[in-house]
Amino acid sequence: MNISILGGGGFLGRKVAAKLAETGTIGGTKIDSLSLFDLAAPPGLAAPFPVTCIGGDIAELPVAAIPPGTDVVFHLAAVVSAAAEADYDLGRRVNLRGTDAVIDACRGLIAAGAARPPRVVFTSSIASFSGGQGKFLDDDARQVPANSYGTQKAAAEMLLADATRRGFMDAVCLRLPTIIVRPGRPNKAASSFFSAIVREPLLGLETELPVPDDFAVWVASPRRATEWLIHAAAMDTAPLGLDRSLNPPGMSVKVGDILAALDIVRQGATGLVKRVPDPVIAGIVGGWPAGFNAERAPRHGFSRHEPLIDVIRAFVADDLAATRADRGMA
Amino acid sequence: MNISILGGGGFLGRKVAAKLAETGTIGGTKIDSLSLFDLAAPPGLAAPFPVTCIGGDIAELPVAAIPPGTDVVFHLAAVVSAAAEADYDLGRRVNLRGTDAVIDACRGLIAAGAARPPRVVFTSSIASFSGGQGKFLDDDARQVPANSYGTQKAAAEMLLADATRRGFMDAVCLRLPTIIVRPGRPNKAASSFFSAIVREPLLGLETELPVPDDFAVWVASPRRATEWLIHAAAMDTAPLGLDRSLNPPGMSVKVGDILAALDIVRQGATGLVKRVPDPVIAGIVGGWPAGFNAERAPRHGFSRHEPLIDVIRAFVADDLAATRADRGMA
Repeated sequence: MNISILGGGGFLGRKVAAKLAETGTIGGTKIDSLSLFDLAAPPGLAAPFPVTCIGGDIAELPVAAIPPGTDVVFHLAAVVSAAAEADYDLGRRVNLRGTDAVIDACRGLIAAGAARPPRVVFTSSIASFSGGQGKFLDDDARQVPANSYGTQKAAAEMLLADATRRGFMDAVCLRLPTIIVRPGRPNKAASSFFSAIVREPLLGLETELPVPDDFAVWVASPRRATEWLIHAAAMDTAPLGLDRSLNPPGMSVKVGDILAALDIVRQGATGLVKRVPDPVIAGIVGGWPAGFNAERAPRHGFSRHEPLIDVIRAFVADDLAATRADRGMA
Repeated sequence: MNISILGGGGFLGRKVAAKLAETGTIGGTKIDSLSLFDLAAPPGLAAPFPVTCIGGDIAELPVAAIPPGTDVVFHLAAVVSAAAEADYDLGRRVNLRGTDAVIDACRGLIAAGAARPPRVVFTSSIASFSGGQGKFLDDDARQVPANSYGTQKAAAEMLLADATRRGFMDAVCLRLPTIIVRPGRPNKAASSFFSAIVREPLLGLETELPVPDDFAVWVASPRRATEWLIHAAAMDTAPLGLDRSLNPPGMSVKVGDILAALDIVRQGATGLVKRVPDPVIAGIVGGWPAGFNAERAPRHGFSRHEPLIDVIRAFVADDLAATRADRGMA
């Protein structure tokens, strides 16, 4: 199997690449090669198969990013929520033109005689929904986005489903929950604080909480999201029919639940969390639904979520030391 | 008011232009100018205001198509269903890049100091839904398109809603039913036969019916669609919130109902309708839902549909002679 990861330098891209390197297989089949593509060429990684690292603009996708013989494309490249809100043209270019470029690359594989359409695993987002704190949405809920990022993700889902129907690819779109706990530094996602309120105190740093403690959010851990993405790469897609989008089974938790779990893992850590209401951030994340009745994805083999305490312990085990090192902390 | 009609040379574009020329007003306000844009410059028309006719590629929209000072844009330009299915790149270019060009033109008006965002009235389509003969969809039903045209229309709706939220425009998207009776000749829309089974017999010509008599279809007349489009140009949009798309109140009728109404208007005319099943056509139109519980649009002032016999009589009154002349018939 030949795999490409677009957005291979990003947080989830690196997690998926590391898991593939660890197992050497996908869906029980040996991996023959991995291409990692991002704006700047991602760093390589030790793996039991050759790894090629490519940098470039996804809207003018280099052939090497999805080379002839590619079986699976993880399309994770995106301009995130606050950034797409700040720069409309950039969001459109990366999130929509980039998706068109992925479609065209897959069409190229078919035209060149690929035995079957490549599997494309796309990360959509709960930011493509609205409704706010009062809403718990069913699997067939309409996407009525309240931000440009969510709009571009929802539109891209439609384009990928159509490309699948036409035989250009075999797409699975996962509307990922807010991922906690993200390593590294705060980023331009409006949801960045959901990770910061755990990560920063564990680094001994103060951080700001812009929403009330009873704010509900639909979350998933990096471990669970990585597992879902790899499952989507190998699952049987025939039963999906025209509808290639799934709401994987995250967890609806309150900010206060996250803080309570943090205090169990590291007593007193939440003393570093300062309540500083931010109406701009609250306005964006407050438009997302509180949760989903995610029944379809588990029927297609997507695993249920582990508890919050496990999520925080996994961050300590998997990412805390690397985050500390990345940020030049002792 | 300065009005632009993109797709001004098409069937509905000409109907809207003719109605504006007849009334000289829109929403009770005097019309100052009209721009008609299409692939080839549309013919002019007699009107109590200046009319400019422009030809060009909507994906590279000339400034004159939406000139400074434009208050209302009717965005009706599209590559229709069978054509978008036959040529993916053309459908994407016109139906998606064209919509982006409309958004950018409206951004240009704002940047140039427009007092308020231009109203954009967009024709989406029931082809953006699926479900087939068994489905009667509610207003909040998800669009899961079964063809590229419907996909591009649904994605364009999302882009226009986001552009509205951002203050670039003030969009209303109408998911038009299948329009019957269209004048002229059969075209590349898969739904072309729904008009042909009335129009061709009224011209004394044989025509083919590719689906069974009990096939259900969601229809609207040209008079009703024109009225809806003009209502959408002047309605109060504040109550729409984020959701700028409406299912106007068409009618769910069976093909047999259309033929029965035809025989009332012109006795024996249906003898010219030959049953010739076509699995390709049936496959496309068979994916569209049989009808909608359209409750939201009437609450926003969209008028209810008139009966089928009136629809056929209106075709005879409005379009039959012109169709006969266009086609060089005595």
